[in-house]
Amino acid sequence: MYALAIHGGAGTIDRDKMSPDMEVAYREGLAAALKAGEDILKNGGSSLDAVTAAVIELENCPLYNAGRGAVFNSVGEHELDASLMSGSDLKAGAVCGVQLVKNPILLARCVMEQSEHVMMAGKGAEKFARLQHIEFEKPEYFHTDFRYQQWLAIRDTDEFQLDHTLASNRKMGTVGAVARDKDGHLAAATSTGGMTNKKFGRVGDSPIIGAGTYANDATCAISCTGHGELFIKAVVAYDISCLMEYKGLTLQKACEQVVMDKLVKIGGEGGLVAVDKNGHIEMPFNSSGMYRAKVREGEEMRVEIYKG
Amino acid sequence: MYALAIHGGAGTIDRDKMSPDMEVAYREGLAAALKAGEDILKNGGSSLDAVTAAVIELENCPLYNAGRGAVFNSVGEHELDASLMSGSDLKAGAVCGVQLVKNPILLARCVMEQSEHVMMAGKGAEKFARLQHIEFEKPEYFHTDFRYQQWLAIRDTDEFQLDHTLASNRKMGTVGAVARDKDGHLAAATSTGGMTNKKFGRVGDSPIIGAGTYANDATCAISCTGHGELFIKAVVAYDISCLMEYKGLTLQKACEQVVMDKLVKIGGEGGLVAVDKNGHIEMPFNSSGMYRAKVREGEEMRVEIYKG
Repeated sequence: MYALAIHGGAGTIDRDKMSPDMEVAYREGLAAALKAGEDILKNGGSSLDAVTAAVIELENCPLYNAGRGAVFNSVGEHELDASLMSGSDLKAGAVCGVQLVKNPILLARCVMEQSEHVMMAGKGAEKFARLQHIEFEKPEYFHTDFRYQQWLAIRDTDEFQLDHTLASNRKMGTVGAVARDKDGHLAAATSTGGMTNKKFGRVGDSPIIGAGTYANDATCAISCTGHGELFIKAVVAYDISCLMEYKGLTLQKACEQVVMDKLVKIGGEGGLVAVDKNGHIEMPFNSSGMYRAKVREGEEMRVEIYKG
Repeated sequence: MYALAIHGGAGTIDRDKMSPDMEVAYREGLAAALKAGEDILKNGGSSLDAVTAAVIELENCPLYNAGRGAVFNSVGEHELDASLMSGSDLKAGAVCGVQLVKNPILLARCVMEQSEHVMMAGKGAEKFARLQHIEFEKPEYFHTDFRYQQWLAIRDTDEFQLDHTLASNRKMGTVGAVARDKDGHLAAATSTGGMTNKKFGRVGDSPIIGAGTYANDATCAISCTGHGELFIKAVVAYDISCLMEYKGLTLQKACEQVVMDKLVKIGGEGGLVAVDKNGHIEMPFNSSGMYRAKVREGEEMRVEIYKG
């Protein structure tokens, strides 16, 4: 039995600030990504291939803060982070602060499969990418007008935004996917452009194995989205795995404890998608909304944005 | 009751390959670092100040692979990583891939105390450092002949070394410290130059909160040294904390399970220093040696290199 869940970021997402057209576009983006992943799982493909395919779709969609739709940093450029992990062998790959890479998740996978390392940063990671024939794009590819307007609004301030909002429509911009394939193997993948107007090579939880991404066939696969600094301190993804392994909690109870209690207590706004070894899916968040979608073998796809 | 433990790296450290003079020098470096940290704890200072002071000493010592004694990367430069965490409030700071910063641990602390972020990378982190008046050094400062010879020996190969050995004297080069102060607060700090001849902006576990460094007053403070890629996958530092918190293990049992069993099974060579909320110290390693030292209030300082 296969299962797949994806997210496109969590945060303050208000129904009354979202136009019907925009909502349709966001939903279509999620549905296309879910379908890309499900097509692989349906045909007996691996969870690793499925989460990679789903995240590529979200990276290519200009609406989501990853790949093409990445936010602008303080100097008007795009710095991308991504990571993924395979639950069957605990192999992992991650990149942080890379520029002009079309699909950072493919570079993270390349780090995992074609190097002896887990994590590469900045220019060094880009050099590796070129040797591995990873696809690069011109700066224009990453220029979306919506992101540019967001940046213009705060570029001359010391503020940074967790993701897109002109007005109060705050959203943590990250995309991610978790899957269980027919063979029972789990995988997780996460990708982001970080925070609008971010400075100083800031790295959030998305490329950190254990914080933003974790997968282990014995417990669960997790991909997070939220206030990265607090997700790092709380080692969120691995914490859920440990609560299951060491305390015997179900995925649901572990998610509830971490997202709705521990993170809330430290002001850690956000959420995550999770799947356990039995294909059970959880998509908890403590913000007003989270772009999310899920499907399990034989069940209808569900795409959701708001609470309840 | 205060307690302090430090390490200067683990690995294949053979008694018969170490000259008496070198051994004395290594021991003196450890003793000086331990004393710098203890002086603070003795006078009622904080664990955070103590681990910072101890790591600064080790960064300034050319024998250890951090700060001044950092190994050369594939282009003959030095890329430094560091992180630290405060157990009382779970605040944390980390930097990766920074160059020419005299004491990376001070920059990590500055990220923790003077920014809203936890982690900064590369050039961006250096820009932040300059704004914060962090001390930089010229490239010559980091040029130690021993490291240069190590690099010359493998620079034209695809090999990299976890740390210094010409011949088979392999050592994972990282320095770190953990402390409990008189007020019962814990802290951990880790700093490294990474692997000789490293490429592509490789990042190991040292700057990763949860993997190389973790501190929580409720459980323990941990600083790791070892094969970073495997320490990241195993989320080593936070795993020990979780085994204590969720499974009720003592620090000793948790360390034993992670270092002598889980890491050994995945080929994760290395070790760590750890202290729990009661000031109990553990310094486990699964390699042939680990440069290490410890002291507790009212007890004699102990400096050790080999097993047993």
